[in-house]
Amino acid sequence: MIRFGVIGAGRIGKVHSATIAANPKAKLVYIADAMPKAAEELAGKHGAKVASIDEIMQAKDVDAVLVGSPTGFHAEQIQAASKAGKAIMCEKPVSLSVQQIHDTLKVVEKNKSTLMIGFNRRFDPNFAELESRIRKGAIGAVELVTVISRDPAPPPAEYVKGSGGLFRDMMIHDFDMARFLMGEEFVVVHALGSALVDKAIGQAGDVDTAAVQMQTASGRIAVITNSRRATYGYDQRIEVHGAQGMLSARNVHTTTVEFHGADGTLSDPIQNFFLERYSEAYANELNSFIVAVETGNRDPRPNGFDGLQAQRLADAATTSWQTGKPEVVL
Amino acid sequence: MIRFGVIGAGRIGKVHSATIAANPKAKLVYIADAMPKAAEELAGKHGAKVASIDEIMQAKDVDAVLVGSPTGFHAEQIQAASKAGKAIMCEKPVSLSVQQIHDTLKVVEKNKSTLMIGFNRRFDPNFAELESRIRKGAIGAVELVTVISRDPAPPPAEYVKGSGGLFRDMMIHDFDMARFLMGEEFVVVHALGSALVDKAIGQAGDVDTAAVQMQTASGRIAVITNSRRATYGYDQRIEVHGAQGMLSARNVHTTTVEFHGADGTLSDPIQNFFLERYSEAYANELNSFIVAVETGNRDPRPNGFDGLQAQRLADAATTSWQTGKPEVVL
Amino acid sequence: MIRFGVIGAGRIGKVHSATIAANPKAKLVYIADAMPKAAEELAGKHGAKVASIDEIMQAKDVDAVLVGSPTGFHAEQIQAASKAGKAIMCEKPVSLSVQQIHDTLKVVEKNKSTLMIGFNRRFDPNFAELESRIRKGAIGAVELVTVISRDPAPPPAEYVKGSGGLFRDMMIHDFDMARFLMGEEFVVVHALGSALVDKAIGQAGDVDTAAVQMQTASGRIAVITNSRRATYGYDQRIEVHGAQGMLSARNVHTTTVEFHGADGTLSDPIQNFFLERYSEAYANELNSFIVAVETGNRDPRPNGFDGLQAQRLADAATTSWQTGKPEVVL
Amino acid sequence: MIRFGVIGAGRIGKVHSATIAANPKAKLVYIADAMPKAAEELAGKHGAKVASIDEIMQAKDVDAVLVGSPTGFHAEQIQAASKAGKAIMCEKPVSLSVQQIHDTLKVVEKNKSTLMIGFNRRFDPNFAELESRIRKGAIGAVELVTVISRDPAPPPAEYVKGSGGLFRDMMIHDFDMARFLMGEEFVVVHALGSALVDKAIGQAGDVDTAAVQMQTASGRIAVITNSRRATYGYDQRIEVHGAQGMLSARNVHTTTVEFHGADGTLSDPIQNFFLERYSEAYANELNSFIVAVETGNRDPRPNGFDGLQAQRLADAATTSWQTGKPEVVL
Repeated sequence: MIRFGVIGAGRIGKVHSATIAANPKAKLVYIADAMPKAAEELAGKHGAKVASIDEIMQAKDVDAVLVGSPTGFHAEQIQAASKAGKAIMCEKPVSLSVQQIHDTLKVVEKNKSTLMIGFNRRFDPNFAELESRIRKGAIGAVELVTVISRDPAPPPAEYVKGSGGLFRDMMIHDFDMARFLMGEEFVVVHALGSALVDKAIGQAGDVDTAAVQMQTASGRIAVITNSRRATYGYDQRIEVHGAQGMLSARNVHTTTVEFHGADGTLSDPIQNFFLERYSEAYANELNSFIVAVETGNRDPRPNGFDGLQAQRLADAATTSWQTGKPEVVL
Repeated sequence: MIRFGVIGAGRIGKVHSATIAANPKAKLVYIADAMPKAAEELAGKHGAKVASIDEIMQAKDVDAVLVGSPTGFHAEQIQAASKAGKAIMCEKPVSLSVQQIHDTLKVVEKNKSTLMIGFNRRFDPNFAELESRIRKGAIGAVELVTVISRDPAPPPAEYVKGSGGLFRDMMIHDFDMARFLMGEEFVVVHALGSALVDKAIGQAGDVDTAAVQMQTASGRIAVITNSRRATYGYDQRIEVHGAQGMLSARNVHTTTVEFHGADGTLSDPIQNFFLERYSEAYANELNSFIVAVETGNRDPRPNGFDGLQAQRLADAATTSWQTGKPEVVL
Repeated sequence: MIRFGVIGAGRIGKVHSATIAANPKAKLVYIADAMPKAAEELAGKHGAKVASIDEIMQAKDVDAVLVGSPTGFHAEQIQAASKAGKAIMCEKPVSLSVQQIHDTLKVVEKNKSTLMIGFNRRFDPNFAELESRIRKGAIGAVELVTVISRDPAPPPAEYVKGSGGLFRDMMIHDFDMARFLMGEEFVVVHALGSALVDKAIGQAGDVDTAAVQMQTASGRIAVITNSRRATYGYDQRIEVHGAQGMLSARNVHTTTVEFHGADGTLSDPIQNFFLERYSEAYANELNSFIVAVETGNRDPRPNGFDGLQAQRLADAATTSWQTGKPEVVL
Repeated sequence: MIRFGVIGAGRIGKVHSATIAANPKAKLVYIADAMPKAAEELAGKHGAKVASIDEIMQAKDVDAVLVGSPTGFHAEQIQAASKAGKAIMCEKPVSLSVQQIHDTLKVVEKNKSTLMIGFNRRFDPNFAELESRIRKGAIGAVELVTVISRDPAPPPAEYVKGSGGLFRDMMIHDFDMARFLMGEEFVVVHALGSALVDKAIGQAGDVDTAAVQMQTASGRIAVITNSRRATYGYDQRIEVHGAQGMLSARNVHTTTVEFHGADGTLSDPIQNFFLERYSEAYANELNSFIVAVETGNRDPRPNGFDGLQAQRLADAATTSWQTGKPEVVL
């Protein structure tokens, strides 16, 4: 039984708390949040206790800390938890500063802590199956990875300002997915971006529509497209073209019901956003972390290095978009 | 080069005339119709000549007669063409009278004529491929055949009165398809029918919605459902369940375009009716007949016996519907 | 919080026990089984206590009894629980004897008990959505219901002998589904059946391949096909053809992954059997029962009458198959 | 009746000759080829005469010249035909030299000739329907165009050497398609390419796997991916993401037959290569040209400017790939 302290009672903290509460191998013990009321409400719902971050770090009945606070606090909380001897599961990104990630990983390494980064999509049953088949050789050598990732609706421009920008806030998931599927690091990154959906996003210095193409040292290519607004729902698809075939994973529709009328055949909508689309992924992710902690596996995937590399690609894409030139990532 | 005389310048006569004109191995020489104007128009379109039925039968520059006249004339015209030494392709059904079909086939046999019946769906590339795979053993022994066949809109009640009824007029195609796929004769037929679409059809003594289930001597089962009205177009699907798998053939959509919106994914409509859906089937059918004539194959499929058996099933279904009891067909 | 006593620790008892344990509004208190070891194991897994059936009936800390015993015990246990003032959820079928069902429903009515029958497929999200749209008028008047239901592999002939036969054991789910979707009772039933999959099933006096067509008083038609063996998995599909369109619900595949190779596009397999395919349905079903108990709704659906009618159709189909004649059900 | 002289009896010349022969509004009069035997064979097949290029240009019974010669001859033959007062349909590309295209278009303009360029994919019924819906506003403003285009098997390295490279030889079709769908010119082009499929292609100075992303002045983005080898056939797909929805066009399978087995559902293969996939497109393309000639429309689409712009994008992509930097196209 792994006993958790959760830091952050916001949207993602709620997701993880519910997942912990439902997992028979986990126990939700403490919840911390800068907003006492949010912490109390969430703790009450799952029979947990409210605690300060320090209390969680010191608590003897906490084996693992789940870091679901705002991004700016991730690095220091990982470090504190590592020093306190806790296993750590941290939401992406580790930090918007690559230097800070480096520093954090050193602490984690020194303390031999178990650290896992919340790239939840790796645990989606569809994408996990796809990756598993690639590794088994189903399509031979991977040559071309295509990641399509679009949100149903744009966030407020206010949110965008503090987000680090689309490449670091949204596409970072896709950078991780491209690395996950390709199995080789990317060395060239070229990004295009525009504010086509909401002018206020452009005025805030960000984009809402973007494309990135990347190449590995051996010449393999990945293409990512993002939009902050897809009227048809949360578009999450992947294609991997290899020497011996192609694997694809389609969107998930809410049901299999189809209406057949004079206009054609109309499926049900696709699942609208990440809480619905990736609910199983969150449960699998947590379970994978728990198994790592239980078995003493100090290097579960995605690990801190995965967090670092995704951030470096996001930084490179941001710079490429700003300068109009490809960036080299070595 | 096979030289054709076409009897009948109506809807189906036009289809066949155009198909003959487009086939490089065929030549459309004469067209006959009780309505001189219809014959002239069609002949003019394809550079053919108008002739009487007798003239076609006697013409030395006619190798094959295509019988596309109203059903009531099929039997006598087949017999006349057979006696005149012509190859014959005749639209379904041969006759509404099983006895008349027997008599006609005797004449055809005596004269060693080539006779093919226009069950065009056997030549649809999708259904032909499906049948071909069954024969190659793709699903092992056939156990359960499902034929779904629905028209986009009901005919006028007037038409229905002279049609022989849904089972003989519409479902006869599906009886042929079930025999084609099953590869064993049916011995029990049970039919249900209702006039749900148009009460006038019921008042005319016919049904517009029907289901038939049939069984072979070895216990294999086929199920056919018909409706005279499918708002979503011309629904033509088949499923064959076997000991080692299932084969299915879906509807054909007008294009592969899909619209993705908040309501779901909307395909293009399915092809609306038989001229569109089976255009390739008509061309393949004619070509198959031409090859038979050219190579002296006097028994192309579907042959006169196929025409006879489909008619017997249609009769049995009609009786079953009327009596409420299963019919035995031996 | 609804407190449950579960009778039966076999396959279906395990499913329901796990579902109860996972539902935040339910508590699993007691488990009874003729095999003490099975009861102990299941109770241990979920922190419940082992009890005799009588103890469960008398227990003050039991609000609802879940009847998951062999079919032969259902009726008496429903009656006992009803007399003891418990709410009852009973697996299908209520009984193989229509008379016994009548007697049981009288007891339930007299005691004003809440009784729900375990036709779990009504709670499958796909079929539930389909039915909901029919009721909202999405396709106008229902004219033709098609239920396709095939198991992945046949049961042992031994099982078949005590099962009541395919129509009562397997197709009973489909009879319920046809009634659920049609919204009108069937008055004519005609069944065909064969032992094509396993001769031992035929020798045991049963069939493994069957088709049933039924008609309502107003002429609407339903067609059901069953096979005890589908090499491609647990085939569970529905189509409803109406005056204004068609609704269909397809099979559920294990993932959305597709492999594209020279042979074509290969999807993942469909979910293999009912525990996987209907896991969400079982949870929804239990929840629906709990809501009924909590809100004092004494007539949740599917109710005892639904259990009765499905059994009557199953009996009629069995007789029709045996006599070769349609049966009238009034 | 438009009378054609065809220059080139190679693969594409054969396609166009057959299309002309089958079109009731066209007559194939002359065929010219540097290889007399090829010209004779093709002419014989369609009842046409062999002629020299000069003879075709001078022939009074030629209304239109179809230029299907090797690329190096296109420009001069267009000019000669234009000067001779013929309408011209020319295979893509007009020339590998942008300057030569400019010169050629001046001649065409001076002589007020009808010139159409053979970007056949615009006439594919699926892509044409997709574009038509965009123009009707089905998805609002276009934001992101994705073109997936992959050949079944790579050409010999020998062919590659004289082809102008993948971007000019293969992706030029996709540049045209991106322009066709976007409806706005691209100003930035960035290309990545690798020789992953066949090292000999790399040694010949070309690539076989490539991605290009482009942006318009208003910020809209297009992404193209190419591979010279797709084991699963000729992969030709398009997606257009707009402010109000997404439109997509999928691959075309050879039939609708699906096999359902333990491994999943296996569709038929996709159509293997361009002659099969675009046979209808070639017929529609020719017909569109004939209608333009008949109606005196001197500016059918795709016109010479379309040929010029696609070539400029191909040149820019080639340079971008070589320099590793984005190219500006103004």
